[in-house]
Formats: sequence, C-alpha cells, structure tokens
Amino acid sequence: MIQVAIMGYGTIGSGVAEVLEQNREKIAEAVGEEVALKYVLDLRDFPDSPVADKIIHDFKVIEEDPEVSIVVETMGGLNPSYPFVKACLLAGKNVTTSNKALVAAYGTELLEIAREKSVNFMFEASVGGGIPIIRPLYRCLNGEKIEEITGILNGTTNYILTKMDKCGATFESALKEAQDLGYAERNPEADVEGHDTCRKIAILTAMATGHEVNYEDIYTEGITKITDVDFRYAEKMGASVKLFGTSQIDGDKVHAWVAPVMIGKDHPLYMVSDVFNGILVEGNMLGTSMYYGSGAGKLPTASAVVADIIEEAQNLKSNVRLGWDAKRLEIEPMLSSRHRYFVRVAGTLADKEKTVEEAFGEVEKIVLDGTGEFAFVTDEMPEASFMAKKAELEAEVLQFIRARI
Amino acid sequence: MIQVAIMGYGTIGSGVAEVLEQNREKIAEAVGEEVALKYVLDLRDFPDSPVADKIIHDFKVIEEDPEVSIVVETMGGLNPSYPFVKACLLAGKNVTTSNKALVAAYGTELLEIAREKSVNFMFEASVGGGIPIIRPLYRCLNGEKIEEITGILNGTTNYILTKMDKCGATFESALKEAQDLGYAERNPEADVEGHDTCRKIAILTAMATGHEVNYEDIYTEGITKITDVDFRYAEKMGASVKLFGTSQIDGDKVHAWVAPVMIGKDHPLYMVSDVFNGILVEGNMLGTSMYYGSGAGKLPTASAVVADIIEEAQNLKSNVRLGWDAKRLEIEPMLSSRHRYFVRVAGTLADKEKTVEEAFGEVEKIVLDGTGEFAFVTDEMPEASFMAKKAELEAEVLQFIRARI
Repeated sequence: MIQVAIMGYGTIGSGVAEVLEQNREKIAEAVGEEVALKYVLDLRDFPDSPVADKIIHDFKVIEEDPEVSIVVETMGGLNPSYPFVKACLLAGKNVTTSNKALVAAYGTELLEIAREKSVNFMFEASVGGGIPIIRPLYRCLNGEKIEEITGILNGTTNYILTKMDKCGATFESALKEAQDLGYAERNPEADVEGHDTCRKIAILTAMATGHEVNYEDIYTEGITKITDVDFRYAEKMGASVKLFGTSQIDGDKVHAWVAPVMIGKDHPLYMVSDVFNGILVEGNMLGTSMYYGSGAGKLPTASAVVADIIEEAQNLKSNVRLGWDAKRLEIEPMLSSRHRYFVRVAGTLADKEKTVEEAFGEVEKIVLDGTGEFAFVTDEMPEASFMAKKAELEAEVLQFIRARI
Repeated sequence: MIQVAIMGYGTIGSGVAEVLEQNREKIAEAVGEEVALKYVLDLRDFPDSPVADKIIHDFKVIEEDPEVSIVVETMGGLNPSYPFVKACLLAGKNVTTSNKALVAAYGTELLEIAREKSVNFMFEASVGGGIPIIRPLYRCLNGEKIEEITGILNGTTNYILTKMDKCGATFESALKEAQDLGYAERNPEADVEGHDTCRKIAILTAMATGHEVNYEDIYTEGITKITDVDFRYAEKMGASVKLFGTSQIDGDKVHAWVAPVMIGKDHPLYMVSDVFNGILVEGNMLGTSMYYGSGAGKLPTASAVVADIIEEAQNLKSNVRLGWDAKRLEIEPMLSSRHRYFVRVAGTLADKEKTVEEAFGEVEKIVLDGTGEFAFVTDEMPEASFMAKKAELEAEVLQFIRARI
C-alpha cells in the first residue's frame, strides 16, 4: 500500500481526497497497488469531513513518517509551502503540487533536489487545471522541437472576456459577475493583470526549452484596459479578444509575453469560452496540437494532481526525466516581437485616413457608426516599429490590441 | 545506442526516418542515449533516398538481429504486418505501429505477447494521427473513469463535410476534390463508409475500458447519404454535420457507434475543420477535455510513432502498463442508444405539421423556402422509439441525422 499525505485541505486538497476515494479501484489498477490517504495537514480541524481522523497540525509528522512516500501540496502561496515541499523532497518523498507560484519561483531548485534524491517533483495541476499539458510535454512531445506554445491559461479572465463578447458587458460589470459567482477573487489583480497567466507561460516555456525561466522577464499586460467598444469592433470583424500567454521559440531566441489578443473565428483558440482553458502547441514535426478543458475547479484540478500521484506511485524511487535545468533562458525584449495591431483612433475616417496611411500604409479600416472614431488593423511588424509609427500618428490613439487575424 | 528497424518505407515509414534524423539530438536527450536507424525493410529499393544503404528485403534479418530492439511497423494491412509484428514481439523486440487495422484486429493478442515477453506494443499513431491521445489515456487519465469519448477521427470525411458546409458542395464534388488533392483514396469506401472511424473508436473504447472490443460490433454509418440540402438546413440552424465515432461508457453498459451527427456552434468539436481531428474525453472527475491536431499527414503521424519509440527506448525490457485484456466488451445495440434527430419530410408545414406532431409531439421546425419539404428536430429518445415513430409518420421521410444541438 502506498501512503499519501495532503498539505492544505482547501478546495483542491479536499478535491484530491475525494478523487482518491471515488476512483480508488481505478487508481489501484493503474498503480498495481492501493493508494491510501494517511494524513491531511491543515491549521484547522474538519470534524465533520470524511478525513476528520486524518487531520494533523504538525508538519514534522509527515516529514518524519517513512511510510509516507507521496506528499500533495495544495496550500498555495510560498510560505510555508516552499520550506515544507523542500523538506519533503530532502526526506526522500515524492511531491506533487497545484501551486504555480511555487513552481515558477522555486521549480529549478525543487526539480534538482528531486533528481538528487531519486524522487519526483510534479506539477501537472499548476497549469491548465485539469487539462493534461505538463505530462504531454514530457511524455508525448519530448521528441519534438517545440516552436510555439500559446494558451488561454486563466479561467477568470476568459470568463470576463466571454461575458464582454457575448453579452456586451463592460469590464467592470463582467468582473463583478465573475466575483459574485466565485470565479474571481475580491482582489482580482493576480488574474486580471495577467500575473497568473505569466507564471503559467513561464512554466510551459521552461518545460518546452529545458531551461529555467524567470517569470519576471516576461512582458505582462492584463485585460483591464479592454472595453465594450473594443468588442463592438471585434463583433463587426468576426473576431474576439482573448488573454494569451505565448512563447515563441526559435533556437535560443525566445519571445514570451502575456497580453490580450484579437483573434478571428478560424483561430483554434476562438472557441475556448467561459472558464475553460485551451493550449496550442506547435512542434517542428507534429505541427499544431491543442489541449482543451476545465482550467480550474475542484475536481478537474484534483484529477490532475491524482495523475501525478499515479505516476509517482509507479516511480517511487526513480526520478522521471522532466522539467528544466538551472541555465537561465534569455527572453527577448517585447519590442522585438512581431504582431499585427488593432488600433482605434479619434476622429472620422474622412479626416484622419490620410494621416493613418502616412504612418501605416494601406491598412484594413473599420468604422463604428456614431462613435466619432474608427479603427484599423496594421500589417505585421516589430513592436518597436509599431510604437514609432504610433508616436508619429497625427491622431489620438484610443486603444491598441495585438491581433492575430 | 538503441537500434531501430522500420518495416515499410511508404509515407509514414519515410516520415519516421526523417523525424529520427531531424530531431536526433532532442530524441537522444529524452532517451538518455542515441537512437539510430539500422534497417528499412521494403520490397522496393530506394537508391536515391537517405536510407539507401539501410534497405533490406528479408524480414529474417530484423527478426534475427539481437541489436534491433525497436521495430516500427508502417506497412499497413494485415499481411504480412501481423505475422511480422508477432514474430518481432516473440523475439523480444518492442514494436510500434501506425496501423489501426492491425491494432483493431489483433491488438489483444499482440498486447498479451508484449506483456509475456516484457517488451512493449504501442500504437499512438493508429488513432488521431499526430494528436497525442493513446498516451494521455494511459498516462494522464488512468485515474479517471472515462464516461465518454467522442471523436472526429477521419480527416478525409471531415475535409469532405467541411467543403460541403463552407462551399455548398455536393458530396460527389467534395469527394472528387478530396481525391484530386490526395486526401481521399481512389476507392474511398474505408473512409466515407465510416470503417476507418469504426476501428479507431474501437481502439479508444478498449483503451478506456481495459477490455477487448470487436469493431464489428460497432454500429457504423458513413457520410455518403449526407447532401448539400442537409447543409442548407444546418446553416439555417447555425449547425454543421460531422462524422462522429462515439463511445458512451456507463459501468458495464457501453454504447459505441459511428454516424454523422448534426452539432451546434457551441459544441467543442464544431471548430474541427478540414483534415484536422479532434477527440473529446469525458472523465468522471476531470469533466471534459479535448485533444486536437493533425489527424493524418506524413510528419505528424511519424511524430506520434517517434513518441512511441522514445517511450519504448526508455523501457526496453519492461512492459509499460497499457491496453486491454481478452475479456470481450459487450456493446449495447444501437436501437437502445439515445439521440435527438434532425428529420426532413416531403410536403409543406401546413400539410404535414399535424402528422409530425401526432408522432413526435411539439418539435422545433425549420422551413427551407421553395423546396417542397421541411425539417424538424425531435427531443431525445431511444433509437428504437424514433424508428417506431418514423414508421408511423404519415409523411415521406427524406432524411434523418442524429443531432446534438
């Protein structure tokens, strides 16, 4: 029998306990042995929960129990999750975590300790919730040179953008609805400013390249400046706006960024709505593949944690080759990345068309009647060129959004 | 160094040689050792190809060479691929194949021999071309109870249906275009009659349940009866028609079938167009996940074969737990499966509405002006009930298509 401890009995931790119980037989079959929950570490007691008799308050109990071979970290944050996870690995235990902040900040060190100790540090649930994406990268696409990963990686912002798209909501009202439904935090900054997506694309980039990525090197722009007017143009163009985390890998040259992007109906991520996530992976031989599913939620995320538990149970004392090394990847400056741009300017087409054409040449123009403004979509160019032309433009720029249409 | 032999230097076999060469370093990194091509078995010579010096004509050379530990079968068909693959496994060699016919017909036996010999029989490329789907089922979702798998599994039929949808083409003209582009065979029966999809959903069902599936037990209906008129209705309804292979698993009760299905724009498989494939998997904890990519093509399919080669190279002498046992799964009769139905009847709504309502109650009705017919969509019901009501109907039924809208 393989014994598991869960650290943190919140939404995901309790979900993991539930999945282990619900799918007990299926999991035992996959592992070839029963997997049982021994401890649940939490500051609180849960006298009415199914794990009431397993609750402990002292981390040392887990660290010092040689029967516990797999530890689940679902506390979130960095402290005490970082020292606890590190101590577990040093004690020769396998660890799985759903905590993207932990993986983005300390992944390199924790992976290295796991290798040294011949155990495993896994984190399928840290990106894309229930969607298998970390494991496909090291199990299915490990013979591919990954050229691009682009994902809708945050369910909260995708819910907000979907509401703005489908119902004409403003950012503020869509955010409020997301908060009322429990999809967004009272302090929504980590989601709407793109920080959550940034950590996730940093993890995916490190997985794809095999090298450490400092998430602070990734240009990150959230969705707070996206308005209902942008979506009125998008509708007219048969397009939508999504928050992308993207990594474009060309040998040693890597562009990675987080930003809202206007995409057309034929883009494979166009159909990723509401709280769902979708991740496109381009391989040099495979071409495009996409992974789609529940990006969050108690049971989907717990299911991803359990997938790690199963692989760790199959490899209790051997390190499965995955992750990245300590060589820090250099991320190219955002100004050298190339995009098309959707741009809104004040004034009428009749007045301003000439100044737009002087700066950008012949571009696709869109007019929303009665708004006293119009928009256009540029050709693809380096961001530095766009910024220079935008500065030249003799018209007030109301908005610009990178575009893949 | 790990030595590989390829049997069959056609499109996929030559693609495998190309991927092994192109991504040599990446593959060596994943395996921890170099993977080299030693032989290519084919009846023909390829004097101008990069593998000219590796061509052999005698299977015995592979079978009897102890240095060859992994054999790739990309000949297609059952003879001699079946005896060759069996002999390789019996000789203690790992095998990977892209040949769905072989896997559907002899998978149970070949998996069993691989287990006995502590080697591996893998077939990622047999379903969904380059899309990782077999490996996610046994590596990522092996703790889940799979409740449903629904896929667009055949690129040829999806190309034809997409042409009919987007360009108003008839079945015949779309088929001809697919043939001219090399997407469809001169004898297109295996694709357009659904036989290819049938074998693929049989393999996925066996993977999901762990039990053998006789593909002949799966109700199979192709797309030859789908017309441009059906697509005119579909357009009016914001829908499309796709060829689904579906498996619904409820404990021991399994419904599996292949048929064209009318789906709405909000169905996750709606966006799977042209020669792409998409596979939806419903797990009891995970909920919905989807896998999308190139369902065919030389390099994508070869990339999937290479993913098998890598996992086999990592497990040369140990059997990775996957596949199914010899217990034959009982497939429920199609008549007990439940669907909504899109039905076209001759006559006008004014004339026939009453007879339709007598048989089906109140249903959604659609009129195409000037056609002398109309259509309706029924509630969900068992197929047996639908057939009985259809027989009762005092109007000529021109068409019926199962619907998920």
